[in-house]
Amino acid sequence: MSKLPHIGTSIFTIMSKMAAEYNAINLSQGFPNFPVDERLTEIVARLAKEDVHQYTPMAGYPPLISKIAKLTLQSYGRSVDPETEILVTTGATQGIFTTIQAIVKDKDEVIILDPSYDSYEPNVLLSNGIPVRIPLNDDYTTNWDLVEKACNENTKMIIITNPHNPTGKILSLTDIEKLEAILEKFPNIILLSDEVYEYITFEQKHISVNTRELLRNRAVIASSFGKTFHVTGWKVGYLIAPEQLMYEIKKVHQFLVFSVNSLSQAAISEYLDIVSVDEISPFYQQKRDYFRALLSKSRFELMPCEGTYFQVVSYKAISNENDVDFCKRLITEHSVAAIPISTFYENSKDLRLIRFCFAKDNATLEKAAKRLCKI
Amino acid sequence: MSKLPHIGTSIFTIMSKMAAEYNAINLSQGFPNFPVDERLTEIVARLAKEDVHQYTPMAGYPPLISKIAKLTLQSYGRSVDPETEILVTTGATQGIFTTIQAIVKDKDEVIILDPSYDSYEPNVLLSNGIPVRIPLNDDYTTNWDLVEKACNENTKMIIITNPHNPTGKILSLTDIEKLEAILEKFPNIILLSDEVYEYITFEQKHISVNTRELLRNRAVIASSFGKTFHVTGWKVGYLIAPEQLMYEIKKVHQFLVFSVNSLSQAAISEYLDIVSVDEISPFYQQKRDYFRALLSKSRFELMPCEGTYFQVVSYKAISNENDVDFCKRLITEHSVAAIPISTFYENSKDLRLIRFCFAKDNATLEKAAKRLCKI
Ligand SMILES: CSCCC(=O)C(=O)O
Ligand SMILES: CSCCC(=O)C(=O)O
Repeated sequence: MSKLPHIGTSIFTIMSKMAAEYNAINLSQGFPNFPVDERLTEIVARLAKEDVHQYTPMAGYPPLISKIAKLTLQSYGRSVDPETEILVTTGATQGIFTTIQAIVKDKDEVIILDPSYDSYEPNVLLSNGIPVRIPLNDDYTTNWDLVEKACNENTKMIIITNPHNPTGKILSLTDIEKLEAILEKFPNIILLSDEVYEYITFEQKHISVNTRELLRNRAVIASSFGKTFHVTGWKVGYLIAPEQLMYEIKKVHQFLVFSVNSLSQAAISEYLDIVSVDEISPFYQQKRDYFRALLSKSRFELMPCEGTYFQVVSYKAISNENDVDFCKRLITEHSVAAIPISTFYENSKDLRLIRFCFAKDNATLEKAAKRLCKI
Repeated sequence: MSKLPHIGTSIFTIMSKMAAEYNAINLSQGFPNFPVDERLTEIVARLAKEDVHQYTPMAGYPPLISKIAKLTLQSYGRSVDPETEILVTTGATQGIFTTIQAIVKDKDEVIILDPSYDSYEPNVLLSNGIPVRIPLNDDYTTNWDLVEKACNENTKMIIITNPHNPTGKILSLTDIEKLEAILEKFPNIILLSDEVYEYITFEQKHISVNTRELLRNRAVIASSFGKTFHVTGWKVGYLIAPEQLMYEIKKVHQFLVFSVNSLSQAAISEYLDIVSVDEISPFYQQKRDYFRALLSKSRFELMPCEGTYFQVVSYKAISNENDVDFCKRLITEHSVAAIPISTFYENSKDLRLIRFCFAKDNATLEKAAKRLCKI
């Protein structure tokens, strides 16, 4: 009867709920716990009194769309047409869902890397598409030969996440070039590039699809102001896509949600005039380094983290439980919540890895680390 | 190639855009132009400084969910379980889309009255369902015999809009009883009851599915704070459904959008403590009566309006153009925007009717009426 018979409640709901029940420090679901920039909340407070409470146009609040075009030019040197190539969405999640609904049809194959963010596969299933999972290498690099071998005339889409959630991996130039070669060989495949952590990268910047001519003519790029400006609750993201693709995406968007919260769109639009996205990576790099230093005294083994605000760790030295059980016990016995990495795998592959979100104030990171070092 | 080959840009986008281009008075898309209640904007301004900027739980901001349960009890005497029967959505539009995605499968038939709100049919098509249109009678009452005859073992859903958009019609007790009889006869059919104008009813209140035991066990009810509290831009609505149905809807919701704008949810939650929904119908009844009185001197013929903030008029005495052309000329030559009723019909049936939104301040209604009386 169910359209998603094998899918239950998302791990983010389960873990955040359990964290609240046990009053645990919530390092599971990805969201910051520090205050939002006062300049942004002041904009909201002022705008609340203005005329920004009715439907924006379907594609987004026009000044915000212009600012997105400007940001894309500044960040990536790419000019996008505000009229035809940008769509403001209710968070990147809705942008990704809508893209898949608009593009993937019955029995279309969609290549999803394994592990991947948890919404892609159910999104594809709801479009009656066939998810084709391609395992990442052990070091989370992508095996492009496997990707290419999986491509055929039924392949409609390849989904990448760059920087990658949950592993924090960033695609190298060689990766991007291999991806381009595949797309050249298969002219009907669309790329969906989830770049919601585009402004949270450390030793090396990610290579946005925005900067690659071949890719951008074939790609839908998803981005998130919630992640970039620490307001995950606002649910404001956007898509960039070539006009023809965007036309189909907008067709679905208009009947799926019609438009996005007007007040938040107006606030972000103003904020973009005064904020610099360049501050974000150094800010989170400090948090990452601090959290890693704190955990270095623990029995957890730290995996590399090139981007995102997630730190993956192995608990092999601590326990041989499966990762879901371990995460539950981490909450009930140690009052810290994390995400089990197995939930990002097609077949719940369990490597005894869990993910912590370090987008937290230092006091929280210290308190959590103190507990984690005792285990 | 397109998944919605026969569907273009929604009429609301077309008309609002054209209205802006020609600087016309926009009585097309349904949204108020008067200021939002100051008490509500003050709540927003205050909350902006508080900790309401991260993801709410997936089903909604818990205090808002409790208030929705309370409101439903107050308005309809129905107790709903906050934990399992309520879902906050990004406007009723997303609630309706998500319901259809969760419930309608390949080749399922969905009964849609004709005319109907424009999103239902594309929503069903995207789920690979088959829309089955049942024409309303000439006076916009429902022909339940036709509905019953259309029901068969493949029928998965019946969609009603009560009060009805665009016609303003409200279902009578007899209508509701006939609908109940049909659902009794076909135990597998789910009812989707779009009640977004539930608090905008005039001489007679609508009979909410909330008040009918048999229906509510079989129904998903969609409601809209955007419509109720004059903040259409906020995109906050909700669904009420029995646990089993809601479980499937939440499964889709979590991967479609995950959650709804946190600040707006928190604001509406507080506002529900101080506002009375009983004030809304009298407020709009005055607007309706005023607008009708102003138009009584025009050559437009006024149709009845039992609920919603839309007034349908015939322009037969003025022109024999089709209604889309007439609406375009109304903008370009008379600077007033309306919605052609043919766009709500399956086959663009054109009865020389157009729809005005009267959710406007009196000065706007007067200015528009002055122009319309000259035609
Ligand atoms: C939409 S809730 C999940 C947030 C997130 O991106 C993550 O924790 O990975
Ligand atoms: C989502 S835009 C349409 C608003 C509306 O309900 C209407 O005008 O009928």
